[in-house]
Amino acid sequence: MPHHTQTFTIPTSGKSLVEFTSDVAQWLATTGVTTGLVTLFCRHTSASLTINENAAPAVKRDMLRWMEMVAPENAGYEHDDEGPDDMPAHLRATLTGASLSIPVVDGRMALGTWQGIYLAEHRSQPHRRQVVAHVMGD
Amino acid sequence: MPHHTQTFTIPTSGKSLVEFTSDVAQWLATTGVTTGLVTLFCRHTSASLTINENAAPAVKRDMLRWMEMVAPENAGYEHDDEGPDDMPAHLRATLTGASLSIPVVDGRMALGTWQGIYLAEHRSQPHRRQVVAHVMGD
Amino acid sequence: MPHHTQTFTIPTSGKSLVEFTSDVAQWLATTGVTTGLVTLFCRHTSASLTINENAAPAVKRDMLRWMEMVAPENAGYEHDDEGPDDMPAHLRATLTGASLSIPVVDGRMALGTWQGIYLAEHRSQPHRRQVVAHVMGD
Repeated sequence: MPHHTQTFTIPTSGKSLVEFTSDVAQWLATTGVTTGLVTLFCRHTSASLTINENAAPAVKRDMLRWMEMVAPENAGYEHDDEGPDDMPAHLRATLTGASLSIPVVDGRMALGTWQGIYLAEHRSQPHRRQVVAHVMGD
Repeated sequence: MPHHTQTFTIPTSGKSLVEFTSDVAQWLATTGVTTGLVTLFCRHTSASLTINENAAPAVKRDMLRWMEMVAPENAGYEHDDEGPDDMPAHLRATLTGASLSIPVVDGRMALGTWQGIYLAEHRSQPHRRQVVAHVMGD
Repeated sequence: MPHHTQTFTIPTSGKSLVEFTSDVAQWLATTGVTTGLVTLFCRHTSASLTINENAAPAVKRDMLRWMEMVAPENAGYEHDDEGPDDMPAHLRATLTGASLSIPVVDGRMALGTWQGIYLAEHRSQPHRRQVVAHVMGD
């Protein structure tokens, strides 16, 4: 069974949810896979992956505010080598997770109508993040 | 290597954890796969997948109460187009995630004794939810 | 396409994050897979898997304290058959999740420089935990 890997580099402007669904879809189309499995893996501990609603921009803003609430800055962390956003970034990366797998059916990822694939940047400063993709299928 | 996909439609009665382990197990048996990997993917942003204890019904009730606490309603969300349960549903879906992968060993999913596979419905109203399954193996 | 499974048994000393990246890497090397996908699955509902920073020990301590905050003990749970750490353990396992998938590129898991693979033990007492690994690739 053929399989392929690809690394996506995603620039961020600090804390944000950056959609890259179309990058994955375009790459998938080049592989010719019609039935299979796509896996995405974020190579960082202060950024992560999540599936989220891709229609209303307010959802992204509420999601980021919620992460500030669940894993707040300045909560007396022992680890703050790189500033107040350091440890909360690790916690928020844990919250959403590093990997995502999506079946491929009829040549497309089986995403629902409102689902988009997002890189969640948890640091305050801009970064360039790497997501490794793998697809197996035929 | 053979692989197969299947879509499960899971009716819910509003906020709840709906076990569908046996549906997946029965489908897996029909594929004849004895060693491989099952991946499940939830096609929604207000429902999600989780592995949970399948013995004590109180665990499900405590889990649902915990989600109400971690991602509460009426927390001043900007996005409330569809009512007070709308944005919390997106947050709780993020909390548990859209995809799950389970190795297949000796013809069965390698679940532990107490593990069940659940669709988590995060909206107040009943829905029909779609979970796409993919298995590769031989 | 060749594939392989393996069960890792990980002893814990009560609530802790136990890194086992090198166990997975050593097993992967024996399989000879150079391009593919590794999936890890935790067979428990009171222990789970997470990717975390592997450099600063304080990160692990902050992470454990955060879990105590997000899913506290003695929060009026209905399910407490096995003591005050029982239900929080299920909640924390839900928070981080049971499965992780990591692409294999050039014979190695595509982990970032600072990423380690951890079993998160959520019970107070020591346990022996099972993680089932699956790799497909060639």
